[in-house]
Amino acid sequence: MTDHSHLRSRLLERQAALYTDKYELTMAEAYFREDVHEAPACFDYSFRSNPFDSGFVVFAGLQDVLDVLAEYRFDEYDIAFLANDGFDERFLRYLEEFRFRGSVRSMREGEIVFPVETVLRVTGTLLETQIVETMILNILNFQSLVATKAARMRMVAGERGLSDFGLRRAHGLGGISASRAAIIGGFDSTSNMVSAERYGLLAAGTMAHSFVQSYNDELQAFRAFARTLPDSCILLVDTYDTLRSGIPNAIRVAKEMEERGERLRGIRLDSGDLAWLARRARKMLDDEGLEYVKIAASNQLDEHVIRSLLQQDAPIDLFGVGTSLVTGDPDGALDGVYKLSAAHGQPRLKISETRAKITLPGHKTVLRYTNGRNMFEADAVILEAERRGSIGSSGTDHPQALESSPIEEMEHPFEEEKHKSLRQYSCEELHGEVMRDGKISGQDYSIEDIADYVHSRLAQLPIEYKRFENPHVYKVGISAELSDLRTTLVEQHQEKAS
Amino acid sequence: MTDHSHLRSRLLERQAALYTDKYELTMAEAYFREDVHEAPACFDYSFRSNPFDSGFVVFAGLQDVLDVLAEYRFDEYDIAFLANDGFDERFLRYLEEFRFRGSVRSMREGEIVFPVETVLRVTGTLLETQIVETMILNILNFQSLVATKAARMRMVAGERGLSDFGLRRAHGLGGISASRAAIIGGFDSTSNMVSAERYGLLAAGTMAHSFVQSYNDELQAFRAFARTLPDSCILLVDTYDTLRSGIPNAIRVAKEMEERGERLRGIRLDSGDLAWLARRARKMLDDEGLEYVKIAASNQLDEHVIRSLLQQDAPIDLFGVGTSLVTGDPDGALDGVYKLSAAHGQPRLKISETRAKITLPGHKTVLRYTNGRNMFEADAVILEAERRGSIGSSGTDHPQALESSPIEEMEHPFEEEKHKSLRQYSCEELHGEVMRDGKISGQDYSIEDIADYVHSRLAQLPIEYKRFENPHVYKVGISAELSDLRTTLVEQHQEKAS
Repeated sequence: MTDHSHLRSRLLERQAALYTDKYELTMAEAYFREDVHEAPACFDYSFRSNPFDSGFVVFAGLQDVLDVLAEYRFDEYDIAFLANDGFDERFLRYLEEFRFRGSVRSMREGEIVFPVETVLRVTGTLLETQIVETMILNILNFQSLVATKAARMRMVAGERGLSDFGLRRAHGLGGISASRAAIIGGFDSTSNMVSAERYGLLAAGTMAHSFVQSYNDELQAFRAFARTLPDSCILLVDTYDTLRSGIPNAIRVAKEMEERGERLRGIRLDSGDLAWLARRARKMLDDEGLEYVKIAASNQLDEHVIRSLLQQDAPIDLFGVGTSLVTGDPDGALDGVYKLSAAHGQPRLKISETRAKITLPGHKTVLRYTNGRNMFEADAVILEAERRGSIGSSGTDHPQALESSPIEEMEHPFEEEKHKSLRQYSCEELHGEVMRDGKISGQDYSIEDIADYVHSRLAQLPIEYKRFENPHVYKVGISAELSDLRTTLVEQHQEKAS
Repeated sequence: MTDHSHLRSRLLERQAALYTDKYELTMAEAYFREDVHEAPACFDYSFRSNPFDSGFVVFAGLQDVLDVLAEYRFDEYDIAFLANDGFDERFLRYLEEFRFRGSVRSMREGEIVFPVETVLRVTGTLLETQIVETMILNILNFQSLVATKAARMRMVAGERGLSDFGLRRAHGLGGISASRAAIIGGFDSTSNMVSAERYGLLAAGTMAHSFVQSYNDELQAFRAFARTLPDSCILLVDTYDTLRSGIPNAIRVAKEMEERGERLRGIRLDSGDLAWLARRARKMLDDEGLEYVKIAASNQLDEHVIRSLLQQDAPIDLFGVGTSLVTGDPDGALDGVYKLSAAHGQPRLKISETRAKITLPGHKTVLRYTNGRNMFEADAVILEAERRGSIGSSGTDHPQALESSPIEEMEHPFEEEKHKSLRQYSCEELHGEVMRDGKISGQDYSIEDIADYVHSRLAQLPIEYKRFENPHVYKVGISAELSDLRTTLVEQHQEKAS
């Protein structure tokens, strides 16, 4: 594997700062003109509900966010554009010199995360923590969506191959990060070459109908392809007639390859009843002693279709998944939000008539509790001040095991009469520092490391949270101190309004 | 407006060639090694079904495709990556020098298009027409999806403002083209600054809850924002309590602005019952003589919610739409395909058990028939050879009116017993040359031109195709000659297989 680190953020290097909603810059200008832009502030990233009726989300996109923050700047084109759009001259002089110097504490990329809890938080000046909002949401919402979708497919596919074929149906350049997230969620490979280059992913692919069509007959086409790819040839067998033409021709080519000491890697089915065709194909191949030839399948697959195919014992070795993976069908978006939780040294919140939409104030961290079998039991959001003094394991990595929990019980985030005791569980802190004063400070994990982490953490999530139908709701609570702070601030605002 | 043409393709300039599925390059290598890579070929872009249960699709993305094709090249990083991935050395030397020199005939960007018909076609060498497949599908499928979604919202919003607020929920960098497509479909503005810069779009935005929260109280926050934006200040009124705090504070600031000779532009509602709150807000504002203050609304809007709000006479002047617009909810993808229709000078097709999935062979063009009221009646896909000799209107632009139709009737694409006479209609050819031998040859339309074209063409589409519920199916037929060619080729393949 060559070193592609020089490529990692190339796509974004020019767009980092302008890749934002206009209002971030308008608010930044107001902060600047009112001279409050350097006041300290804290923003939290969290989401409200799991997509796909899933019981969990795979957190993805963190390293891309940090790469962008580390290189965040407005160049001469950006400044000229903003001047033309009416932004204040003095403010633009400030932006010319602007660099992101804030700090980020976050869950590890690949963590299994849940609604309500603070997944990541950004501290710094009011201006710098505000203007990065859109970019952070854009990257984390999408990559977490796709990584979660991919993890669901991995759960049902077991050890079988999963390859991302989605680029043609991905949302423009969003396909680049879709493929990254697919691998994090558990896919083996991608057809997407620019993502493979950028992120060092395994690139894979077969052949298209057009290749077969371009020859006068299918057998000629298969032979030509096998000559070019003697080691990794997968033949698409449904261009004309899968059972009468495609598979017989593939078998003939496989035999010819055997004579040359080569082995046909596989065939691909892309239409029709995949379960039935896969069984017929397997038998036709096996009858010719071609047990080693793999069967790949594609065409409108998702986790439900893959599960169904395997429940029917369809002998499929490799699934190529496109649209549903890269578009996050049927949900299309994770509803992540980035909310101000402190400013000017004071905790802040946003009030809503819906209790669940009142934000959690203050600088917070998240603890995870595991039982005697090392399985996840519950998460608690607490104020960072509560965590201080709790002795953690040595090492700078996170999550970090704590010798004892800073709190003995947690309460339901919106129904304060509900409590859960945490006494019998082990406790780890999920947040760790990943950026300090604008510099990346956490470990630089490879995509493989992150994918392995997803795999190991999902193994700690009990099965009732992983099932597709009505998964159990994982318990995320808050500390009494955090609850009290929220109540106090809500009351203050109600007094002010009346 | 400054000239941003230098920026247009900057995002893609480095990624153009590698932004592809691996199999395109594998097939290209096979073509190259078998020495058929320079054989002539033709590929068609079409789609099979309308998204959103819509009766039509707005074709978008063409100019981006042409920009990428015009700059298509593999640079040293790409070549190094491909070498590392195992591609043939001699093939890579070929790719180093490779430029796209093919030609493209296409419908105009912004055209109203329908399933089955050939929207765009690429001719050139087998290799060059093949390797651009993924990129073409990626761009056209997504931009057409979003432009169609936007057009549906424009149809119900009438003259009211529509602004794209979707970047935070867009699919990574796909947000860049989403905003372009939104404007093409009929949106007025976007919050997305990088798209505004790149494509010369109108940038717009209001304020976030965090701005209000960062101040000790809402009134202070509103005053600060009004000082920064005396001309375009829109105040978000639901951070604490819309009716008891937000709107009263906005009214107070509006009065203060009046004393300075300024005018508050508007307020924004982002939660709660938008119809009810808008009516209450309108009355509160009007009671204070603030009839000029606009009401903007956002929060999970789509075409159905906007229609419902307006059916309730909600006095909303501006809609900010996010997730549903940029993700194409609930469909997430247009199912466009790119199929080989000719190679080595011969028409080609792909066979399928489903008749609707048998492709249309040969070099084709598309005619549109309009009735005496200049409304669209039907489209016919014909062989290009049939069109020759038909005298068109002067001018190089397209669509081009023909003096008479080359065919007198068309048949249903899959049910050959169904015919439609075309005698009484006027006829225009929808395809025009947009790239010749790798150089852009069509007109360079601005985004405004394209949006205007969508607007004028939608006005020619009868209302029964535009309704949301069970829209009438627009008739797309094929010529008898094209039908016969398909039948002949299918029979040839069936003979070969038996």
